[in-house]
Amino acid sequence: MTLALTVLTTTDSAEKAEELARGAVEARLAACAQISGPVTSVYHWKNAIETSQEWQVFFKTTEACYDTLEAHIARVHDYDTPEILALPVVRGSAAYLAWLAEETSAG
Amino acid sequence: MTLALTVLTTTDSAEKAEELARGAVEARLAACAQISGPVTSVYHWKNAIETSQEWQVFFKTTEACYDTLEAHIARVHDYDTPEILALPVVRGSAAYLAWLAEETSAG
Amino acid sequence: MTLALTVLTTTDSAEKAEELARGAVEARLAACAQISGPVTSVYHWKNAIETSQEWQVFFKTTEACYDTLEAHIARVHDYDTPEILALPVVRGSAAYLAWLAEETSAG
Repeated sequence: MTLALTVLTTTDSAEKAEELARGAVEARLAACAQISGPVTSVYHWKNAIETSQEWQVFFKTTEACYDTLEAHIARVHDYDTPEILALPVVRGSAAYLAWLAEETSAG
Repeated sequence: MTLALTVLTTTDSAEKAEELARGAVEARLAACAQISGPVTSVYHWKNAIETSQEWQVFFKTTEACYDTLEAHIARVHDYDTPEILALPVVRGSAAYLAWLAEETSAG
Repeated sequence: MTLALTVLTTTDSAEKAEELARGAVEARLAACAQISGPVTSVYHWKNAIETSQEWQVFFKTTEACYDTLEAHIARVHDYDTPEILALPVVRGSAAYLAWLAEETSAG
């Protein structure tokens, strides 16, 4: 059973990552977010392998907030096709999950 | 099918993160743990958006060990409501999963 | 429902992590990969608790590519029993998931 979601996106500066995180938390679309980086991203671009520096944002939210959070990230993000992926939380501390639900109840 | 769990917590220093990691591995409640940080955490606090530095701990364990690991983290952690969330592992190398089960069999 | 997979491995240098990431992306076994590190790994070794520096690689791929990606990592990796674990993606941006499937369609 999915109790909550960890939603991931990546962007190309610490400032943009913080803007994405703050905006989602401010709008109550996530209870909190963690920014990790720089990380090295490796991907295909025009038939070559590119590497670039990126920052990862991990949002903690509920299933109920997911669609609105995805729309928020897509709107604020400046990539054409940003990574937006959600991983399920299947166990968790009852107190933390209650806090997470409370923080996002207005989202 | 859930084959194993990745359990996450965050705390506010590298030393506390290592204490949480070592304690769980020592008690055989996790096969291993990885500490990542500092990361930037963004959350609501008293009607404002706060950011702070934290360290993430990713424990690798089994479903059988989860409840005892959660109780261990809650006891050692000095936050009132620490993040304790488990994400499911749905595929994995058979050799690594066997090692993970063996390492935690006394947990 | 699993829409995609995030596959994790860890290794002991940034160079080996990049080799693992580039090889998988080049072979179309992952749409992209992110390398994070150094992280501090904590584990049992010969009845003591060891800590060491490692780098984490997060591959983004499909369920269809998983077995071939696992075999690739096991072949390139120089650990006897490397960590290879897959976490499910249960929600995601339709555009990003389509890109992920397209990038790995030859894998």
